[in-house]
Amino acid sequence: MATLFKDVYITDGSRAKAERVHLLVSKGRITEIIDAGQTPPSADKIISGRGKMAVIPGFVNAHTHAAMTLLRGLGEESPLMEWLQTKIWPVEEKLTPDYIYWGTLSAMLEMLSTGTTCFADMYFEMDRVAEAVLGAGMKAALCRGITAGEPGKIERSIQNNIDLAEKYHGREGLITIQLGPHAPYTVPVEAMKNITDTAKSHGLGVHFHFLETEGELQNLGVDPVKYLADTGLLDVPYLTLAHAVYLDPKSDIPSANVTLIHNPCSNLKLGSGIMPLPEWLERGFPVALGTDGASSNNRLDMWEEMRTAALLHKGANRDPVCVTASDVLRMATYEGAKAYGFSQKGMIREGWFADLVLVNLDRPHYIGANEENLTMYLVYAGSSADVAGTMVNGKWLYRNGEFPTLDSEEITQKAREAREAITK
Amino acid sequence: MATLFKDVYITDGSRAKAERVHLLVSKGRITEIIDAGQTPPSADKIISGRGKMAVIPGFVNAHTHAAMTLLRGLGEESPLMEWLQTKIWPVEEKLTPDYIYWGTLSAMLEMLSTGTTCFADMYFEMDRVAEAVLGAGMKAALCRGITAGEPGKIERSIQNNIDLAEKYHGREGLITIQLGPHAPYTVPVEAMKNITDTAKSHGLGVHFHFLETEGELQNLGVDPVKYLADTGLLDVPYLTLAHAVYLDPKSDIPSANVTLIHNPCSNLKLGSGIMPLPEWLERGFPVALGTDGASSNNRLDMWEEMRTAALLHKGANRDPVCVTASDVLRMATYEGAKAYGFSQKGMIREGWFADLVLVNLDRPHYIGANEENLTMYLVYAGSSADVAGTMVNGKWLYRNGEFPTLDSEEITQKAREAREAITK
Repeated sequence: MATLFKDVYITDGSRAKAERVHLLVSKGRITEIIDAGQTPPSADKIISGRGKMAVIPGFVNAHTHAAMTLLRGLGEESPLMEWLQTKIWPVEEKLTPDYIYWGTLSAMLEMLSTGTTCFADMYFEMDRVAEAVLGAGMKAALCRGITAGEPGKIERSIQNNIDLAEKYHGREGLITIQLGPHAPYTVPVEAMKNITDTAKSHGLGVHFHFLETEGELQNLGVDPVKYLADTGLLDVPYLTLAHAVYLDPKSDIPSANVTLIHNPCSNLKLGSGIMPLPEWLERGFPVALGTDGASSNNRLDMWEEMRTAALLHKGANRDPVCVTASDVLRMATYEGAKAYGFSQKGMIREGWFADLVLVNLDRPHYIGANEENLTMYLVYAGSSADVAGTMVNGKWLYRNGEFPTLDSEEITQKAREAREAITK
Repeated sequence: MATLFKDVYITDGSRAKAERVHLLVSKGRITEIIDAGQTPPSADKIISGRGKMAVIPGFVNAHTHAAMTLLRGLGEESPLMEWLQTKIWPVEEKLTPDYIYWGTLSAMLEMLSTGTTCFADMYFEMDRVAEAVLGAGMKAALCRGITAGEPGKIERSIQNNIDLAEKYHGREGLITIQLGPHAPYTVPVEAMKNITDTAKSHGLGVHFHFLETEGELQNLGVDPVKYLADTGLLDVPYLTLAHAVYLDPKSDIPSANVTLIHNPCSNLKLGSGIMPLPEWLERGFPVALGTDGASSNNRLDMWEEMRTAALLHKGANRDPVCVTASDVLRMATYEGAKAYGFSQKGMIREGWFADLVLVNLDRPHYIGANEENLTMYLVYAGSSADVAGTMVNGKWLYRNGEFPTLDSEEITQKAREAREAITK
């Protein structure tokens, strides 16, 4: 079945200008893009944009803990360690595989309705997360969060992560699997070496929290790049470093297989600090964008993350020119896809996957938007309230308030029950 | 006609906890609030909340330039003076009274649909702005922006502002008028003294830009509080200082009749810097919240402003406890109303004006919200997409996508034509 987007604007993070086109989707891909002045191709379904809709790449939420939707709002406005120790960890212990399944699906409702087509998730009971993802037809980069604990725990977690990869890596083109060592302070160096050896022998990437807080930098005890080199992290097929607030952009970290994940809202909310994003962009280092979990953000909305990334650094650096709208749109789409091994995703290109967001421009805050400035309108003035539909591999997963592949009422009810069970 | 909100949560910026109540509105006021366990009073119209809706005070956007919706997106990502001199000022010269009328109405569509019931506007052709406000039934604090220019200009602007006050101050309980000297760098000291004498003799407040940038502080040439005292600004009936990014919270400025207006998104976007909000709140100084104009934000959405205010200072100060959700809700509602002379507005109290926002809590990101944490859910997880209705003096001005008192299609079309005319 072919879907035609007739007379729509397109833009993405690689374009200096938007274009007004007809865009044809068939067999899960963008198959034709022609100027809107030309005769549109035929199709089974036609979405008529009349120059008042835009099609942009689906967002890739490059770092989250999806099922933490169940923990949202717990222990707000507390210092970090008090928050973790008295509010988050005791409740996480009550999570069952079923609760994680429903909490993840609830997160997926939020993400799909705000234009996200793919998310990178570090949590546990990841078989149930994979099941949720495949059932919905969404894309995801999944890893088992690995932390030290009682004897044998870390080895079992690594094995669990390998099993996950064997079962799900590449499945239906929807899932990639990474190894998920949690952070330097929760994984001893010897275990890290074991994990990176495993990543290399299995051809897997690694998704890792790194230098979220200044305390973590002080406690690391060695130069951060030396730590990454010594543990083998710089030699794995690809590495994503979540947060990296205290990684120095002047350090000699190589960019070939490394992507930093910027989580500006979470870093603000937890009082962690502000990543030196302008310097990383100036250097041309790959940076993607993520929301982090819903209990430290508290939205799973990439529009908020884009807007915050685009505004925050201008103010913090007193430089209205740094971090452009185009930069953050690329970070929110293509960079995240590339970082987690999803090819031909994150730009509007013939032959690329039809992972798309349909945006309604027929609203007062888009008056004046045109080819020259559309990306800036989307980032500075747009919001998730403008999302009219979200498509993965050419299939609508969200359209005008409905979720064709998910039972949103059941999910919301089950997530509500899970929340009640873990907090009572 | 009486409207009953049956079984809804209420919260505002003065409450430690939300409550679940029946709330009755009649003759423009909140007339009864009783526990949801009791029998609800009768009414002509019933909104059934079933514990899945909240009623909060309407937002007061305490500093904007509404008609600048027509200038949105012009000269993005340029340094401040280049932006003003090459993009904003030349286009502003082409604005006609009609364009300002339609641009203001377009701003009002945005504000009403995002829960704002009252806005403080500094611009010109303010008679047409007053006309737009009265026609819609919204509330507004209006001032004529006064700047020096050719001989006699400043005197004419002052007279124009006085005429505005005589015609509209207190009109239908919807409008208050302030004097609007633009900023220290656009109004000479002698003229400022003339303006403050006029404010005192006419019993009017003053709305003023003050210390938005560090350069402005350096160029002021005197201690800021001495400037305010010497020009008579501290003696006017009330004074609102927009931005105040570089006003020192340790200064001896009195708080009796002064409110600072925090515009975090605009200050970030223009690279101005970050106001020391935690210190002002610590001191108990009145601070309200505003969006600034749409060309330097670029949204007129108080949810964005609340969220940014609540997150930004935690990160900038590395303190996850500073600036609470309750603080920013109060800043976004009651503080703005009080600052501009609107009494009995901005809290949910029997006898107070029914300027209210109806919020839909039946969405996945509100799972877990309850009496204890509702304000935090609204500020950290909520967004304008949750607004189901906006009411002023008990009358719906926005409800489920419709504007009962405004022709939104005509406004959007006219604003589009105005934008085209001034940018061609």
